[in-house]
Amino acid sequence: MKTFLERCERAAAHGWQRIYTGPFWQHLRKTGLDRELYVGLMTEVYHFTRHNAQNQALAALRVGSDRVGLLRYCLHHAFEEAGHDLMVLHDLRSIGADSETAARARSLPETEAFVAYVFRVAQTRDATARLGYSYWAESCYTHIRELLDAMRRDLHLTDAQMTFFVAHSEVDRDHFREVETIVDTYCTTPELQAETLEVLEGTLYLQGTILDAVHARWAATRAPVLATVS
Amino acid sequence: MKTFLERCERAAAHGWQRIYTGPFWQHLRKTGLDRELYVGLMTEVYHFTRHNAQNQALAALRVGSDRVGLLRYCLHHAFEEAGHDLMVLHDLRSIGADSETAARARSLPETEAFVAYVFRVAQTRDATARLGYSYWAESCYTHIRELLDAMRRDLHLTDAQMTFFVAHSEVDRDHFREVETIVDTYCTTPELQAETLEVLEGTLYLQGTILDAVHARWAATRAPVLATVS
Amino acid sequence: MKTFLERCERAAAHGWQRIYTGPFWQHLRKTGLDRELYVGLMTEVYHFTRHNAQNQALAALRVGSDRVGLLRYCLHHAFEEAGHDLMVLHDLRSIGADSETAARARSLPETEAFVAYVFRVAQTRDATARLGYSYWAESCYTHIRELLDAMRRDLHLTDAQMTFFVAHSEVDRDHFREVETIVDTYCTTPELQAETLEVLEGTLYLQGTILDAVHARWAATRAPVLATVS
Amino acid sequence: MKTFLERCERAAAHGWQRIYTGPFWQHLRKTGLDRELYVGLMTEVYHFTRHNAQNQALAALRVGSDRVGLLRYCLHHAFEEAGHDLMVLHDLRSIGADSETAARARSLPETEAFVAYVFRVAQTRDATARLGYSYWAESCYTHIRELLDAMRRDLHLTDAQMTFFVAHSEVDRDHFREVETIVDTYCTTPELQAETLEVLEGTLYLQGTILDAVHARWAATRAPVLATVS
Repeated sequence: MKTFLERCERAAAHGWQRIYTGPFWQHLRKTGLDRELYVGLMTEVYHFTRHNAQNQALAALRVGSDRVGLLRYCLHHAFEEAGHDLMVLHDLRSIGADSETAARARSLPETEAFVAYVFRVAQTRDATARLGYSYWAESCYTHIRELLDAMRRDLHLTDAQMTFFVAHSEVDRDHFREVETIVDTYCTTPELQAETLEVLEGTLYLQGTILDAVHARWAATRAPVLATVS
Repeated sequence: MKTFLERCERAAAHGWQRIYTGPFWQHLRKTGLDRELYVGLMTEVYHFTRHNAQNQALAALRVGSDRVGLLRYCLHHAFEEAGHDLMVLHDLRSIGADSETAARARSLPETEAFVAYVFRVAQTRDATARLGYSYWAESCYTHIRELLDAMRRDLHLTDAQMTFFVAHSEVDRDHFREVETIVDTYCTTPELQAETLEVLEGTLYLQGTILDAVHARWAATRAPVLATVS
Repeated sequence: MKTFLERCERAAAHGWQRIYTGPFWQHLRKTGLDRELYVGLMTEVYHFTRHNAQNQALAALRVGSDRVGLLRYCLHHAFEEAGHDLMVLHDLRSIGADSETAARARSLPETEAFVAYVFRVAQTRDATARLGYSYWAESCYTHIRELLDAMRRDLHLTDAQMTFFVAHSEVDRDHFREVETIVDTYCTTPELQAETLEVLEGTLYLQGTILDAVHARWAATRAPVLATVS
Repeated sequence: MKTFLERCERAAAHGWQRIYTGPFWQHLRKTGLDRELYVGLMTEVYHFTRHNAQNQALAALRVGSDRVGLLRYCLHHAFEEAGHDLMVLHDLRSIGADSETAARARSLPETEAFVAYVFRVAQTRDATARLGYSYWAESCYTHIRELLDAMRRDLHLTDAQMTFFVAHSEVDRDHFREVETIVDTYCTTPELQAETLEVLEGTLYLQGTILDAVHARWAATRAPVLATVS
């Protein structure tokens, strides 16, 4: 069984590598973050985070007490996710951005597609499939260090302005151990493992499309300025 | 607002009075319980209890972080309900009944209808509507004392054989205070209150139809015996 | 396979016999219909009929093109059911009753439970299960002749005032042949047949509880009058 | 009201223009189609088409008889879409491709996301929102002429091998007029119009991401060959 967790780890690492080669991360490495790009990013983070408790609860609906550990995990994890979107809005306000505008903004089609995909996984597949999303999400902090570094370096954000990422990351160390235990206990057949892995890969890939779309939108709004400069 | 909780209390009392006048409760008072009637009852209790965590989770799906207290309540309550059905099976086994048979039994149409009604409330109405069900369920122990007395008196059950009702009732004192607080906080418009009250009345009424159907099935299986006697 | 259709036929006949022994039908035979009882009945008929197209469409959601005949049946039948509730409102208006009042009325818990049960069947079971409901509904006209006779005899209704039942019954002769063909083609395993039969029995039983609850409500409103008389 | 249909037309034209600038269409114009690219495309077309009847039926679930024309449209359109996926498999078989392989293939994350997005629109928004998808889908034949030309020119396909696109396009002329009428009749408030337009834009944008992902996958499998050549 340890082998399956290793396959998950490899799939997550592979997905992040792919993201690193995309326009958002390449820009992050070369140029860093400015306020507009950061607000654009956090706006999308808000719009998918605000559904996480709900789609985690949805995944529990077809789990019965014959898998009471999985049922309890789904419901407890849903409970713990509730309100995390409010941390994103707090962080936006902490830099003087208008959180109401962010909350009301029409999110990118990539974000809508991501949210819809997670809901569809939760509704139509076994509850173990959504663990593929939790797997990389609860362990992402080692993979997004460059992003957090840029937030501190380029925008001078303090930990108190990064509650979503920082406070979250401490909690998620425990969460991730729980995810590993649950995956280890309940993803016990090749079919269940294949679905979990597919969702891990699918959600991380779609997450990457959000990052790149955030970058593309930011670049599009700056194009006239650049044109003027050149 | 205290008035609305009083209206809920009155509606619950009225619903129980109605149940007391029905065939099940009348039989309970006149003749008490025998093992067959008790097993028949617990079988149905199992078949609706095993959906309570799930339909409570379902109610959370359309609650956002703008009502984060309600969202957290729904998810935490769902978590706490998870596995309570296993207590019913334990109690059946504790008197030598076959819990597998009970779990596999086709439940009464009244039980299926009750379960379907709660799911439909959770799916199509605001999450506050399902609080009407929680209201009487979490405070039922004062209303079903005659039933618990009969379980002890007629079937000589110990507390260790009544884990669902006894252990549950201790926990539910706190649960009920939570329900009252949540109802008080979130059922704030006449429309929301009307829905909560409608679901309180509807679910308690349908619960009564289950009890009477349990009695009718029990009576039907005994009819030949009675016919032989007379 | 003919045997399964025969079992359905027997189950439907048995369900109707049960209804005939209940308070509504006994009253119908002894005393006939008055306007209040008829309006009370039609109000509930409206409140379950208005969901039939929708729950039939719901049953199609998990049928793929590997059973394209079943998929097409579900969707075509849903299409044909659309708007039938309007015929009920028309018939109420044709006798001077206020169809708006009927449409806004809170329906009986038995009606809500029936509707919820059909939705839950459509959502959680195979699409063939809901055929058990269609089976008796589309062939009910031979079984409810006494009701239609009483509508003509006691309330002097013409066919133009009974569009829901009369026009419907002509269409349903063809519908019923379709239902039989679809049941014959797709209820091909013991498991599928058991579910269809369970839903046939369950929905017809719950339909009976609606009729008896209509009668009980009518009787309750008349009780004071009777008390005055005696 | 004509203005809103004009806005839809502009939005569709704009969406197609965007698709024309992407890698798939640019390749189509410069190099045309080969068999692998065509099979890759049709495999994804199959995997989103096979859900169209179902998600159209889903959109009908919360439409009542107060908008009976919209209800009938949704159900009739769902009925007409049923089985169209089988035409895609037929067309694949007609060129000697293995339709079983295509049907079993894991579809691209972009396709899964598109399907999930349409289901989520159908489930959570008013039924008029999904009309935005129908609007461009039922009128796409004028916009994809270059694709059909390439199928005939590069792959020598006859109309009998292009049943999905050709037969479909004849039927869809009438469908499109229906869509326009329904949009005109039911998208009557700024809010409903905004949702329909958002879904038109969102689904067409996501459709473009499928095309480009089909191209990217095709290009990736050819990369080693090209490397060998150079």
